[in-house]
Order: sequence, then C-alpha cells, then structure tokens
Amino acid sequence: MKNSEKEGFDKGSQSSGEYDAFLEEKIIAYRREFHRYAESGWREFRTTARIVEVLESLGYHVLSGKEVIHPPSVMGRDSEEVIAQHIKRAIEQGGSSSIINKMGRYTGAVGILETGRPGPTIALRFDIDANDVLESNEENHRPQVEGFRSLNEGMMHACGHDGHTAIGLGLAEYLMDNKKELKGKIKFIFQPAEEGVRGAKAMIDKGILADVDFFLSGHIGFQLPNGKFAPKTKGFLSTTKIDVEFTGEGAHAGSDPEKGKNALLAAVTATSNIHSIPPHSEGVTRVNVGVLKAGVARNVIPPKAVMEIETRGETEALNALMYEKTIKIIEHAAAMHNNYYQISKMGEAGTVSCDHELAEIVGNTVKDLGIMDEVVDIQYLGGSEDATLMIKEVQNRGGMATYMIFGSAIGAGHHHEAFDFDECVLIKGLKIYAEVIKKIPTLRNDV
Amino acid sequence: MKNSEKEGFDKGSQSSGEYDAFLEEKIIAYRREFHRYAESGWREFRTTARIVEVLESLGYHVLSGKEVIHPPSVMGRDSEEVIAQHIKRAIEQGGSSSIINKMGRYTGAVGILETGRPGPTIALRFDIDANDVLESNEENHRPQVEGFRSLNEGMMHACGHDGHTAIGLGLAEYLMDNKKELKGKIKFIFQPAEEGVRGAKAMIDKGILADVDFFLSGHIGFQLPNGKFAPKTKGFLSTTKIDVEFTGEGAHAGSDPEKGKNALLAAVTATSNIHSIPPHSEGVTRVNVGVLKAGVARNVIPPKAVMEIETRGETEALNALMYEKTIKIIEHAAAMHNNYYQISKMGEAGTVSCDHELAEIVGNTVKDLGIMDEVVDIQYLGGSEDATLMIKEVQNRGGMATYMIFGSAIGAGHHHEAFDFDECVLIKGLKIYAEVIKKIPTLRNDV
Amino acid sequence: MKNSEKEGFDKGSQSSGEYDAFLEEKIIAYRREFHRYAESGWREFRTTARIVEVLESLGYHVLSGKEVIHPPSVMGRDSEEVIAQHIKRAIEQGGSSSIINKMGRYTGAVGILETGRPGPTIALRFDIDANDVLESNEENHRPQVEGFRSLNEGMMHACGHDGHTAIGLGLAEYLMDNKKELKGKIKFIFQPAEEGVRGAKAMIDKGILADVDFFLSGHIGFQLPNGKFAPKTKGFLSTTKIDVEFTGEGAHAGSDPEKGKNALLAAVTATSNIHSIPPHSEGVTRVNVGVLKAGVARNVIPPKAVMEIETRGETEALNALMYEKTIKIIEHAAAMHNNYYQISKMGEAGTVSCDHELAEIVGNTVKDLGIMDEVVDIQYLGGSEDATLMIKEVQNRGGMATYMIFGSAIGAGHHHEAFDFDECVLIKGLKIYAEVIKKIPTLRNDV
Amino acid sequence: MKNSEKEGFDKGSQSSGEYDAFLEEKIIAYRREFHRYAESGWREFRTTARIVEVLESLGYHVLSGKEVIHPPSVMGRDSEEVIAQHIKRAIEQGGSSSIINKMGRYTGAVGILETGRPGPTIALRFDIDANDVLESNEENHRPQVEGFRSLNEGMMHACGHDGHTAIGLGLAEYLMDNKKELKGKIKFIFQPAEEGVRGAKAMIDKGILADVDFFLSGHIGFQLPNGKFAPKTKGFLSTTKIDVEFTGEGAHAGSDPEKGKNALLAAVTATSNIHSIPPHSEGVTRVNVGVLKAGVARNVIPPKAVMEIETRGETEALNALMYEKTIKIIEHAAAMHNNYYQISKMGEAGTVSCDHELAEIVGNTVKDLGIMDEVVDIQYLGGSEDATLMIKEVQNRGGMATYMIFGSAIGAGHHHEAFDFDECVLIKGLKIYAEVIKKIPTLRNDV
Repeated sequence: MKNSEKEGFDKGSQSSGEYDAFLEEKIIAYRREFHRYAESGWREFRTTARIVEVLESLGYHVLSGKEVIHPPSVMGRDSEEVIAQHIKRAIEQGGSSSIINKMGRYTGAVGILETGRPGPTIALRFDIDANDVLESNEENHRPQVEGFRSLNEGMMHACGHDGHTAIGLGLAEYLMDNKKELKGKIKFIFQPAEEGVRGAKAMIDKGILADVDFFLSGHIGFQLPNGKFAPKTKGFLSTTKIDVEFTGEGAHAGSDPEKGKNALLAAVTATSNIHSIPPHSEGVTRVNVGVLKAGVARNVIPPKAVMEIETRGETEALNALMYEKTIKIIEHAAAMHNNYYQISKMGEAGTVSCDHELAEIVGNTVKDLGIMDEVVDIQYLGGSEDATLMIKEVQNRGGMATYMIFGSAIGAGHHHEAFDFDECVLIKGLKIYAEVIKKIPTLRNDV
Repeated sequence: MKNSEKEGFDKGSQSSGEYDAFLEEKIIAYRREFHRYAESGWREFRTTARIVEVLESLGYHVLSGKEVIHPPSVMGRDSEEVIAQHIKRAIEQGGSSSIINKMGRYTGAVGILETGRPGPTIALRFDIDANDVLESNEENHRPQVEGFRSLNEGMMHACGHDGHTAIGLGLAEYLMDNKKELKGKIKFIFQPAEEGVRGAKAMIDKGILADVDFFLSGHIGFQLPNGKFAPKTKGFLSTTKIDVEFTGEGAHAGSDPEKGKNALLAAVTATSNIHSIPPHSEGVTRVNVGVLKAGVARNVIPPKAVMEIETRGETEALNALMYEKTIKIIEHAAAMHNNYYQISKMGEAGTVSCDHELAEIVGNTVKDLGIMDEVVDIQYLGGSEDATLMIKEVQNRGGMATYMIFGSAIGAGHHHEAFDFDECVLIKGLKIYAEVIKKIPTLRNDV
Repeated sequence: MKNSEKEGFDKGSQSSGEYDAFLEEKIIAYRREFHRYAESGWREFRTTARIVEVLESLGYHVLSGKEVIHPPSVMGRDSEEVIAQHIKRAIEQGGSSSIINKMGRYTGAVGILETGRPGPTIALRFDIDANDVLESNEENHRPQVEGFRSLNEGMMHACGHDGHTAIGLGLAEYLMDNKKELKGKIKFIFQPAEEGVRGAKAMIDKGILADVDFFLSGHIGFQLPNGKFAPKTKGFLSTTKIDVEFTGEGAHAGSDPEKGKNALLAAVTATSNIHSIPPHSEGVTRVNVGVLKAGVARNVIPPKAVMEIETRGETEALNALMYEKTIKIIEHAAAMHNNYYQISKMGEAGTVSCDHELAEIVGNTVKDLGIMDEVVDIQYLGGSEDATLMIKEVQNRGGMATYMIFGSAIGAGHHHEAFDFDECVLIKGLKIYAEVIKKIPTLRNDV
Repeated sequence: MKNSEKEGFDKGSQSSGEYDAFLEEKIIAYRREFHRYAESGWREFRTTARIVEVLESLGYHVLSGKEVIHPPSVMGRDSEEVIAQHIKRAIEQGGSSSIINKMGRYTGAVGILETGRPGPTIALRFDIDANDVLESNEENHRPQVEGFRSLNEGMMHACGHDGHTAIGLGLAEYLMDNKKELKGKIKFIFQPAEEGVRGAKAMIDKGILADVDFFLSGHIGFQLPNGKFAPKTKGFLSTTKIDVEFTGEGAHAGSDPEKGKNALLAAVTATSNIHSIPPHSEGVTRVNVGVLKAGVARNVIPPKAVMEIETRGETEALNALMYEKTIKIIEHAAAMHNNYYQISKMGEAGTVSCDHELAEIVGNTVKDLGIMDEVVDIQYLGGSEDATLMIKEVQNRGGMATYMIFGSAIGAGHHHEAFDFDECVLIKGLKIYAEVIKKIPTLRNDV
C-alpha cells in the first residue's frame, strides 16, 4: 500500500503543523497515485477500489458501484466487453479484486460519517474520472519527469480530478480524526464519469441525495491563480450530449454508385446545418459536432456514420431549443439520404445558481482561515458540470448548495495533454472544506 | 404585309428554278420577321397570328390558341397579368387583333390540308418559340448588322425555331401549290413553348394527333455542318422540369435571428445535396439547379426561396430515379428548416426511338434528291425535346415517326446570345419535307 | 404647398397652447406627406427638395446634395440610370426641379441657424429615407384608411424616419421662432440612406461635423411604449454590409455540364460556411446572407451569383473578426469553383457609448419638462445605426453626443409592411429637442 | 508443410488424368492455405515467404521483397511500426523467418524459368493480397464451415487473389514439369497490394518488365459464371487514390469556440463539393469520399480530419480532370477554414486496350482446349486494376498483353464478407495459362 510507510506516525502526539505536513504529504501521494493509474469515465475500477479501501480503513460506512449507481440512468458507458477489459486491467494494476467484484461492474463510492450528534446532513462531492487524453511524455512535463505520468495510454488526469479525489480522501481522514468537533452526518460522494457530464444523474436517481441538507463541491484551477478562492460559481452552461449513428447502405463506388445510401453525405448535411443554427438573442448558445467517423473503404459508398455532438445554452430553455433544432436536422438529413438514424443521450447537465447565504458563510470562513490571498465574490465558469444536477436536486428538496473554485497555478489548460497543477492547492482545499463543514451547522439550526 | 411585294409573282408561269428562288426569298423573309419579333414560350401571340394569317391566305383550314391547346396540361406559362402584357405588345407589333382575340390567351396553331385523295394523315411539327435570351448587339452579329435583331429585349430566337417556322410556312405554300401530287391529309402543327419542353403535352392532350399515321419533325443545326443530313436522331434525354418554392419565416437577423425559418438555408441544403446525387451505372443522368433566388433584404433571415431545377436521364427510368431523389431531398431540406415547400412541374419530355423503316425512306429520299452532300445514318442529340412526347403518342397509336437533323453552319452555339445560322438550310429543309411527304403514302398502303 | 393653408396663422398673437397645437398639426401633416411620397436610400429627391424648401422659407442657410455628400464615400447607391428615373419621379411628384437640379444627383441637406450669440455648435441629426418594403393595403392599416399610404410601390416609411424628418422641420420652425433664447450655432442634418447604414459616412467625410461640439439624434418607437423616454442608448452592434458577385461560366447542363464554372455552387458553399462561423465567447456576433440570386435558366450551369451579406458584432473588433472570416470564405468558395468574385462595401456602422454627462442633462431636462410619463436610464438597441459614426466623429474631436429613444406605440414591428406609430410622439419629440438645445450651452461654458 | 503429404506422388508414372487430379488437389490446398492466412496489401509476408519456398523447391530462380520492389514508388503502405507487427505475425504463423528477413520489409516475388531455348519472354502476373474485410463467420459461409476462414481478423481474401496465387504456384509446377515443351523465358510475377491499385507501379519501376515481350494476367469471377471465359477485357477505369489530412486547431467548444480552426468543417465542405463535381459529357467519371474521420472529443472543435478519396474516369484524361477538380476543392476547403492540408497518393491505375492479336490466339486456344463452355469475345470490367500499368509498360516497349476473365460461380459479390468462389475454376485457369504459354512463341517468331 502506498501510504503504509506512514503507518507508524502517531497523530495524537504531533503538533498541528506536523499533522498538516503529514496530511499534505499523504494527499500529494494520493494525487500522484491516481494520476499514475488514470481511469476515464465508468472505468474507474482501481480508483474506486482504492477509495473504498481507504475509507473503510478509516472507519467509514462505504457503499460502492451498483449500491450508488442506478444503471438505467447511466449515460455514455462502454460496452460490457470493454468494461470487462478495464476490470481486468484495474486488478492487474493492484485494485482489490474482492472490492471490485462487489461493485457489480459499476464505479463510484459513497462514504458516510455519522457523528452521532444532531445536525444537518452535508454532502461533499468529488469527481474521480480521468480524460480520454494521451498524456505528454515531453521532458518539461512534471508527471513525466517525476515518474507519475499515466500508465494507461489514452487516459490521463488532465482536469485535476486526481486532486479532487486526493482532497476527498485526506479530508475523510481529517474529519474522522476530528469527529468530536462535528455534528450531523457527512456524506463523501466520489462520483464517476463527470467528463461528458455522464455520472451525476445515475447517483441522484439511486437516491444518495435524498437526505442531504447542504451540498458542497468545487474545482481546482480554472481561471483562478494560486491563492485566490471563489465561494460560488456562475456561468454553468446547460448541455446535452448525444451520439448519432446513421445507417445507409454500401455499394461499389465505381461500378454501382447509385445503389448506395450514403451515410457520409447524411452526416455532412447534418454537420453543416447544425453548425448553421443561428445564435439566440436571449443568451449564449453553443453546438459542436466534435467527432465524425464514416465509411469503411475508399471505394465503397459509406454505409455508416457516427457523430458525437453537444448542445449548450445559458439557460435550460436555450439548450432545449438548440437540442430540438439539432434533432430535427439529424432526422431529415437521414431521411434525405434514405438512412436510418439512432440518437443516444450520452450526458446532460443543467444550469444553476449557488445559494448566496451558504456561499457567504463559505467566503467568510475562508477569509477568517487566512490561507488564501484573496476571496473573490463569484467566478464565471462558461462550461458544463453535472454537479449542477446534484445542486438542483438538493435545492429542490429545500437544501442549500454551492460550488467553489480553488485557485491554482496550472501548466497548460484543462484537458490539454500537458495539464498539471500546483499541488499546494490540495492541503488548502482540504482545510477549507473542513472549516466550512464545521461552520455549516451554525447556519441553520432548523435543518 | 411583309411579303406583299411578291404578290405579283405568277407562280404558274415560272420555271422550277425561279419558283425555288421565289420560295427561298420568301422563307428567308419569314425567318427574319420572326427573328425580329421574337416571342418566348406561351407568349407567341404575334407569331401565331402571323402563321394563321399566312395559312388562311393559302387556303388552309386553321385552328389556333385554345382550339389546339388543352389548358390543364399547360406547363410553365406566365401569370395572366404577364400574358396580357404580351398580348398588348403583340398587337402593337402588328399582330392581327381579331386573330389574337380568337386565340383565347393561348398560342400555337394547326393548319390542315385535305387532299381529297385517300391516304395517310401526316403530321409535321414546327416549334415557334424564342428563348429568354438578350440578343447580342455586337457589330459582328449578323442580325444586328442586317437589321433583324430582336426588338423584344430578353427574348431572342437563339435556337433556330424562327427557321423552323419559316420552313413550315414555305412548305405550306409549296404543298398547296402542288396539292395534286399529294394523297391523304397533311397537318401542320405550329407548337408553342418547346423551350423548357412545355408545349407538346397540351397539344397532345387536346387530341390533335388522334388521327395521325406519320409524324415528322426535326431541327436545323446542332452538331451537323452545312450539307449534312440525318434522317433520324437518338440520344433524347428524358427530362422533368420543376420549380420549387420554400416558404419559411423572416426575422431581423441582428435582433432576433432565432425567430427565422431560413428558406435560403433550406435551398442551399437542397442544392448541394441535389448536385451530390451520384451518377448511375446504367446510363447518362443529369441534374441542375439552374436558378436560385432567395431573400428580401440583407438584414432579414430569408423567408422565401425559389429554385428552377431539371433532371435528365438516358432512359425514362433513369430520369424518374433522378427526379425521385431530387424530390426527397427537397422535402427534407424544407422540413429540416421548418419550411413549407411547393413543387410545380414546368415541363417534361421523354426519350424515344425513331422508326427505322420511316427513317430509311427519308434517308433514301434525301439521297435521291441530291441537295445534301452527305446523309449520315443517325445523329446523337444529348439534349431534350418534347417532340418526343408526340412521337411516342403517334407510335403508341400504331403510327410511325422520325426526327431529322438538317445540317447548318451556326454562329455560336444554340441558346447563345450570338446564335445565328446559315439561311441556305431553309430551302433545303423545305424540299426535303416536301419530297418525303410525297413518298410516305408509298410506304404503307394499309394505313 | 402643403402648409400654405397655415400661412395666415399669426404666431405672435397666439397663446403657447395654441402655438403648440399649430405646430403639432403641421408636423403631423409633414409626416403624412413624407409617408405618402416615401423614397428609399439615395433616392430622397422629393424629400430633400421639400426639406430645403421649408428650411429656406424659414430663413435657414441651407446646403444640399453634393454640398453635403462626399461621393467617394457613398455606399449602396443605385446605378445612375436608376437614380435618373427617381429624379424624374420625384419631380413628377412635385419636387422642385430647380432645387433638385442643384443637388447634383445626391440627396440629403443641412440647415444652419446662426444665433449670433457665442456658444457651442449643436448638431441635430434626422434620417429621412424610407425602406424597400411594399406597404400594406389592408383595411386595418391606418395609412391606407386615412389616405397617406405610400404612392411609391416597394418604398415605404416602415421605420419612422418620416416622423424624424417631420420633427426636424417642426423643430426648425420652433427654434427660428425662438431664436432669441438660443446661443451658438444649430445645425440640422437631414441624412439620407440610414437604412443599410449607408449615408452617414459620406456626410462625415464631407466635413459637416468639423465644427460640432454637441450631437443629438434619436429614434421613435423601438421597445419603448408611449410616454417613456431614454436619454441614452446602448447595444449598437457594429456592422459591415457587403454585396458579393461570383462570376463563373455557363454551360448547357445537359450536354456539357463539365464546361460550366458553377457560380451557384460557389455561393451555396459560401452561404453554408458563413452561417457556420462559430459564435464568439467575448460577445454577441451575427452574420446573415440575406439575399442570394443565381443563375439564368433552368438548363444552364449558373454563370453568376450575387449575395447580400451583413456581419455584426457587439464591439468593432468582434465585427471585424466576423467580417474577415466571411471574406476568407467568399474568396475560397469562389476559387474552389474557378469563379472570380467581387466584394462591394454597401454600408457600415460602429458601436459607441453615449456621453453620460450629456445624457444626464437630457434626462433631467425631460423630467423637468413633464411631458413624458417615465424617463428610463438607458435603452438597449440590439441593432445597427450609422449615427454611431457621427457620434464617434464628434467624440473624437472632443465633443459630446447622445442618442435618445422617444417611446411610441407602434402598429407592427419596425420594417414590417404594416408599421405605423402614434403621432402623439411627434410634438413631444420636438419639445424635448428644443428644451435640451436651450440647456446645452449651460453644460459647458468652455466649448 | 501443407502439401508434404503429396511428396511421395510419382508424377512420371501417372496418367494425365491422375496428374491433373494431383495438381487440382494441390492448388485447392494452396488456395485454402492462403485464404486462412489472409494478408492485405504490403503485409503479405507469410504469403510471399510461402511462394518463395514453393518456387525455390521447384527449381525457380526467385527474387523477392526489395529485389522486386522500388520503395520510392510504393503507395499506401503502413508505417514501419505496423509493418513490424505484421512481420512478427507472419513468422508466428509459420512464415520462414530466413526468407522474410531477406525480403527487407517489402513483399512480392518473381520466379524465373529459363527454358534454355530461344523464344520470347512471357510474364504472368498473379496478385496475392487480401482485402481489409472482416470475414463472415456465418454457418452458411463455406470457409467457416470447412475450417479455412481467415485467422487474421479484418483481413480476408474477398476478391479471389488466393485463387490467383494458387493457380500461379500450380502453374509453376506444371511448367517446370513440362519445361521441355517450352521456349524462351517465363517470369512469374507475384504482385503485392493490388487492392487500392498500390503495388504494380513499384514493381514496374524496379524494372522487372524490362525484358518482357508478352504479358498475361486475369481474374476469376466477376460477372462471368462458371464455364465462361473472356480472352480480353475492356472498361478499366483509370483511377487515382488519395488520402487527405486537414490540420486545423482545437479549442473548447463551450468556452472558446472562436479559437478553433475547424478541420471537420473543412472536410465537410470538401466532401459536399467533391460529390458535386458534375459528370462529364465525354464518358463515365466517378468520385468517392469513402472514409472521413475527424475530431478528438465531443466538446472540442475538431483539430484534424482525414479523408480517403478516389477519382475514376473512362479515360485517363477524364480521371485527370476529376482529380484536378478534387485537389482544387481540397485546397480551398482547407484555406477557407485556416487549415493546412496534405495529400498522399495511395494508388493509381490506368485504362488500356488489350492486344487484339494476342487475345485472338488466347481465345482460339481456349476454344480448342475444350474445357470452357463458352468463349465470349470481350468482358466489361467497370472497375480499376493496376495490371493496366504493367500492360501499358509492356505495350510501350513494343510487347503485347491481355487480361482474361475466368468465369466462376461466386458466393456474394467481390469484397463482400461472404465472398467465396467455386474452386473448379482453379485447374481450368492453370490449364488455360499453360496452353497459351505454349502457343505464344508461334505468334511472333520475331520477338
């Protein structure tokens, strides 16, 4: 086990500074371990197994895999064949086979800390998946130099979720160590498949937020530099992700071109018309055909085409409009070329407002804590996050939620093959979560 | 009257050579008159009036306008307002108002010569319409130099139908003068609106071919030079002509772009997909979006678009396939952009085979006549002609038909603004028709 | 003369209420006269002649046509042939031929009032052109019912510039009548061709703003209802208007399709790619291919295509980016199809900020005046206006400017064939201009 | 070794019928072996090694790999990494490592039989590569049932080249056994990479045809059924195969869409315009975008796109025209979207006429032989073949050539996953080649 060398450390006998240093070293090690064994969405078997292992060793009540996932709500997951290969790989890479077997082919975990004292239920959400990116092996890329570049070709933590997971595990240890200062119930949600906004819905639909009064999540990096912190976020774009498959008919392009039903021309027509959907006067809209693959051979009229598409909107209504127009275009591009088509929803996220009252207590707590240089009022995101679905779920049940940004120097942009971040943000994130959790029960005595 | 100067000519007392010279001068004058007063399809009011006038003066029984046209079968005719303007113009340009009034707003004429002797009914078809072309006014364009350039801007005899009409009228005079050598019945069909293959169907549906045993038509020029003649033609492309109108909805392109239903994008999508219909392995196919007009103002999402389209095929089946694919594309291009669409059929022609037996007698007659340098077996057309519909009608009723090409030097290609032809072909054409008509009754005693 | 009936009115002996009623009746009459003789951009010969006539009769020093227009900067003007026809029509419709002759084939006028007292130069800009719209003749359209529907088919005051011009002329009379209360110099700018943002640049480049310290303009209607007023405006979209002509080569679509250089396919490619230019993350952008016309005949590969395009951006940089991308697409769409292309700039406008200090005095003046129900702080436009070019010119020279919105009930939206407005806004507009002009000299003693 | 069981067969002591049966059994075994170890173009390492082994064991002088291939002329070959994997696989599948090592990473072989008697040099060309097709595993697919379905997933003999290779090896044995009846020199050319018309050029440029007087090649199946034979072929379409790569720039589709340079839109524009290239009036033309792959992720503006394209023409001039138009479209589609592009030529073939004189002797020989039911005059191909490049090379040097079709029942069309053929054609093909080779020296004593 990676952190076995620290087993001899006697927490009780150490100073606060020594304890912090001990924790920081530990979460940096966690981060590098997850970075090295990067697993992208719905493939996080080693990652989940490791989370379960740590949480159980700390004394948490832990649920995982099928216990926290509602399969019918799962979007954008590989075929069972591919999942089986990833389970095999995860075990080969040291994932506990007994834990993985228990997970029932699904990833993600929830750890519960019951303080035994009355108080609210606070959910903390950490996303755990990597990106489908081939990590840089350049000599100026720190993970390469320091030996924790991803071992899994084509999967890389290029967004910082390795850091989120590390903060979550460190925080779990800290809270357990400081359990006597806490009230109510704390739920650690380790969510799979945030990339592509695929995972949140399946956890919500499993009911894991049914008892939650307060919800906290957040992200490291983005536009905020080291030392800055935002207690709330705006500019979540509502989004829908779809895969489209056109099925026509092949034919020899030289001898029988008229016999084909050209799926590429259907896809080409769809693409150019989808990109021509006009902008909306009431707010930001986006649409992208990100991937198009068609055809089987140079001399055959393409019988198949697949497209990966996303729509976005500043409001859910705007996204819905973009989505409807996109669907209509696809339908008629197919019909025009005598193709069948199939649309699969691969992800979705909404747009929300963080609760001002909660954000204010978070902001003041961070100011008081004195570990960040500056607390900005609010940070603009301009992207999509399926934490929004969880935030809305909690708010709809009468709870409160916010999404924080933890400033951090980053090497190359998010999702870039040379992404990296300054690990000093990790212990700061841990301490911010910890202090806010202590403060929340004072916010509302009624819940 | 244009040819009144010749009224004093005593045909009976002249030699054959003198008679021929007299006729040639006359038909060249006819040709130039029709060229000068060029009228495009369904607008040939002055032209028809003049034809009627000449035929009646020669003693023909003449039907015209609504008597020879079945209005429900008319394709591609102007609105009544525009027709009214052309009637007005035709009368101003010397067309007999009493004849035009009798025509009932439709053009075309049929002249009948009953020989009184038993024999077959032979139909001769001459097309009379001009093209929608602005005639050249360059100093090297003979009609400009010699003063018979079209007076009607945007209408020009750029295909030689002025010559066909002139041959027809000269031939009518010749046959009447030589009536005693003829048997059966001769029908002169002066057809409107051949350009765009719009006129033949309405004459057929009126029943003017119901009694016809033999059918002759032809064209001057094409790829055959002066002195060459082909007694039959192949390579008629079957064709369908349609007008399409997309109706969407306008919106201010700056302030409300999302409110528009963009008819131009529907038309653009249709155009690029129509031009992408693959060629067919079984023969020549063609498709063309010849005209596209869309939009009302730069700053308005285009609410309307109109397209003029034609499909063609080496066989009627191939044309039908191109047509179906085109229609399907239009339907879904409209639906994709929430547009309505309307398709109007503007013309059609088929593909036929000339009767070998008839063509053989034509070819031999021309060889015997000795006025052409060379008789080729068959000529390839590669275009469309609605004489094909008449040929098929006659053949379906058990008759025989052929379509001849009269070689002629031409200045610039057919439909070009500088088109012209060597008028020496006119008298030759007349003589060929005349001799063939005399021979035909020997071909089949049974009909 | 239209207002000669009022010649007997003795202004001096009337009460203020009677004087206002007299003025209101007069400007309503002006408005209806201009509505009746609607003339679109660069064709405002009768309109300009009438303005000159009134201003001169009031004692203004008046410049017109070529005296106020710099021809090389003129955009989007008809050919000289068309201009000649409109001059003819304008004279037939009562425009003074001596004034029109003096105008030198250009429209627009400037009237100058020198108070003789020291003070700033204040420019007032009124746009005078109609839209290229066929006015409704429905029985619920007031101009139709009350007999002032446009006499000029296809030209209609559908934006309210007839009202602007009427306010300007009424104001000119009022200020002349109250000259003793004024300081400095007042310049009335009657600008042609605001629609399509074509006219302002040519007036600026003639130098008519060279001495201006304060600039006022405004618009009736838009989103503000009767009784509301905004002393300043934001949301001007920077815009560029271009016409594009593709020149390829025709060919017979049946017999020689390969010989064509298809200008329609070039235009279709340009259109679909222009509409696919992505939105910009830094602000609103727009692009529209508003008009596309291509082809000469159904059976000819289209040899020509013309397009009318506009780009817009929330800032000038954003518009410039859209414009560059559009140009690049056009260039390569042409080259791809072996076409030549030509781009003509047909209009342009910028984006500006109204001066806060000036707007504040305007707002306070209107509040004090008590004739509007509510003064809103600022109004969002979301469209383009070439008054922006004049505002920027004045601001660049150290002057101040604002653009006001005069709320008015409107029947149907701006540019709609059934547009109309509540004429009660006219006298209110006049009074607001008048009071502001009196106040301005107190704003800056230094200018 | 697959045919070692036959080593004990004493050819000399057998009747002709027994010898034929022995040969037939052997070539059927060859065919099934090659079918089982199917290797597509430039990957035929096991196939080549096996050919070399057999030819050498028969006493041929054999050249292979780099000895018969001119690397700079190679088109459409995998990267060296992929080639290395296929070499590894070929050896694992029993290919002789010593032969393969000698081949120098290139495939293909030439075997030479010097009769020692004066006479012409006759080249026989057999193509040896499989298709990139996943073979059917349905229970009605004979190779599946009888256990010789391809072991190499994604590579399958779906065109019959396994049969060609088997005929070649059987013929090599037959000719060596009957060497005393032969004159001149016989060259067996086993050509790699015919699919995609990639391999012939590299063998020609190596000079292997420099001494050839007569050239024979052919194909089994196509439209000819069992028992029919054509001594010559027409309708070879000239073709060019290209791969295109567009390189733009990625960007986050939600937060920075304007920063992207969209390679997919470049490819979409190219595709729709390439498919809109009009047909040619002078003959058959074809174009196909057979494969398009673009983009890296749904939420990223696609930075890359690759296309696989082919053009064809009934003549080389027609193909050249299609090719030029295609290239021009690609160039400007890239430039329009600020993309770079790269075009790699992946294959080419011409169009040729078989020599009538040679075909006549072939036809007569086959008629005399009496093993085929019918000898048709000529067979139409309607596809492309790079044997055309070899035919032209031989003809240009003054030699003669023909391309034969050996009728055969086939299960499913060529290139279909369920392709199979009636193996009875193999021995017939062998006998035809053998008899023709014996006759050829009588055709021209001079060469």
